[in-house]
Amino acid sequence: MINAYAAQTAGGMLEPLEYDPGILKDEEVEINVEYCGICYSDLSMLKNDWGITKYPLVPGHEVMGSIAAVGDHVTTLEIGQRVGLGWFSHSCMHCEWCMSGNHNLCLTAEQTIVGRYGGFADKVRSHQEWVTPLPEGIDPAKVGPLFCGGITVFNPIIQFDVKPTDRVAVIGIGGLGHLALQFLRAWGCDVTAFSTNPDKESEARKLGATHFVNSRDTKAIERLTNSFDFILSTINADIDWEMYIKTLRPKGRLHFVGVVPNPIQVNAFSLIFGQKSLSGSAIGSPTTTARMLDFAARHSIEPVIETFAFSQVNQAMAHLAQGQARYRIVLKH
Amino acid sequence: MINAYAAQTAGGMLEPLEYDPGILKDEEVEINVEYCGICYSDLSMLKNDWGITKYPLVPGHEVMGSIAAVGDHVTTLEIGQRVGLGWFSHSCMHCEWCMSGNHNLCLTAEQTIVGRYGGFADKVRSHQEWVTPLPEGIDPAKVGPLFCGGITVFNPIIQFDVKPTDRVAVIGIGGLGHLALQFLRAWGCDVTAFSTNPDKESEARKLGATHFVNSRDTKAIERLTNSFDFILSTINADIDWEMYIKTLRPKGRLHFVGVVPNPIQVNAFSLIFGQKSLSGSAIGSPTTTARMLDFAARHSIEPVIETFAFSQVNQAMAHLAQGQARYRIVLKH
Repeated sequence: MINAYAAQTAGGMLEPLEYDPGILKDEEVEINVEYCGICYSDLSMLKNDWGITKYPLVPGHEVMGSIAAVGDHVTTLEIGQRVGLGWFSHSCMHCEWCMSGNHNLCLTAEQTIVGRYGGFADKVRSHQEWVTPLPEGIDPAKVGPLFCGGITVFNPIIQFDVKPTDRVAVIGIGGLGHLALQFLRAWGCDVTAFSTNPDKESEARKLGATHFVNSRDTKAIERLTNSFDFILSTINADIDWEMYIKTLRPKGRLHFVGVVPNPIQVNAFSLIFGQKSLSGSAIGSPTTTARMLDFAARHSIEPVIETFAFSQVNQAMAHLAQGQARYRIVLKH
Repeated sequence: MINAYAAQTAGGMLEPLEYDPGILKDEEVEINVEYCGICYSDLSMLKNDWGITKYPLVPGHEVMGSIAAVGDHVTTLEIGQRVGLGWFSHSCMHCEWCMSGNHNLCLTAEQTIVGRYGGFADKVRSHQEWVTPLPEGIDPAKVGPLFCGGITVFNPIIQFDVKPTDRVAVIGIGGLGHLALQFLRAWGCDVTAFSTNPDKESEARKLGATHFVNSRDTKAIERLTNSFDFILSTINADIDWEMYIKTLRPKGRLHFVGVVPNPIQVNAFSLIFGQKSLSGSAIGSPTTTARMLDFAARHSIEPVIETFAFSQVNQAMAHLAQGQARYRIVLKH
């Protein structure tokens, strides 16, 4: 039996739920959860903001733990090994996306907390290929958030070939943004942090920002016209996107990893002159996740976290909902 | 003296204008205009749709002609040589964009019909580097439109690395679209044509479309969910862009070369899931133009044109404005 925390209704409290996961499948592993990060998408799923939640919902997709059991066909993981699990827990392994190493783009990929039970629990299961061993030098107490927040901001660096010579910017210095600053500094980029909260300047600079701009200061943003090769938006609020597109250099890209509530509006002219792009992405493949972890270990990249006991999960969710998390919350058994 | 056709006011008739171009600069050439295509942007400029027109306006930026005179420092062109000239006639040659072969992204590039006089004339001048010699096998009477329409649709194929294995689509089968079909077929792609005009089906297929879809048939478009790697929009009307983004496969791109009147609206989710991109571009560099001409000559790609005498320039502009051009108009001396 697995002991989890589940919500029975949209926005409801998380209460203990015991469930029988059935027989372990041949390609599955069972993980003893040691830590689990809380991601903003756990909150969105709890409230059913995206209309895809099924209840009871057991959130949790930033799992760190150790292998407790392996299915008969598991070849790459062994009992006791320390691993992590993120947003996906299975993909078909046969479609062109899986076969080309883009498992996160598999159209039938299984999401860890959609239609199955996630990591707010003492145990969680996953297909073996979506479980990534921890490299040497990673702090197990802090690694959880890298399995969703970390890979989310790292993946576009790989996918869109961000170069160390690039001037880049990060919009929003929160759970995602504070990791993006670290990855992009380690990548060798010149990094500008945009935040509505001037109190974050000193920490943003410590985390990797070369420059800090108050994003309520539209005059300051206008002065940055034609500055950036790559802008990563991590926020979930509607802002004047045209203003930021103007800060892109020719061939520049504004990339979304945060879901904003209303449609993004952009004039065709703003893309045509300067050959600019808008794009989005979610998570990354298992291979990219492994590269991200290796890079994080080599460059001492880790989330700034606050730790809560699993028994305080509702307080932790409320803390996140109030925008108080600095910068990522990890639950601990 | 140069004899041109000029409009004195927004939307006004084109009337003869004689002007003195002054002394030929060291790096300039003068071209005897033999043919000049009419591009939809000549019409937009005539009406000052983009707010950048200066009057008197001499339109014309799809010039075919022969070199009549060369400045003292011109090294790559000789008198009598047959050449073409497009949207740009000068760039700084020193900025990082010029220096990296992206002259069309030079922030101070001079546009042939903005603040100077264009190709609706017996002669026109340009900096030598923006004048491209015609390769063997190109029909001089038809090549004009390749210098704006042709390079506009060819450039994104190069810039965004469209592959012969890709499934692609073209929205709008007009002056730009009918060239895009030819380039993309010759590139080896599977090509779908979207048009609101079912009468264009048979010609679209002849030009290169493997499939033809009536873009008023939203059911047919829904059935194309997850079909295309690359969609090129050539239209200047507002449509449901989300509907087309759904037809993109993961990693797909919707690319704009046509200026649409109102902001494009797209949900962040639609980009994030499937890692999709929106982008735009204008024209191409001199090097890409030369590659385009070589490719067009090898693959017998040429615009379908209607020819008008220069003296009929106003009738020709009205024909274009009425949406009657099939598919590109060329003026002839």
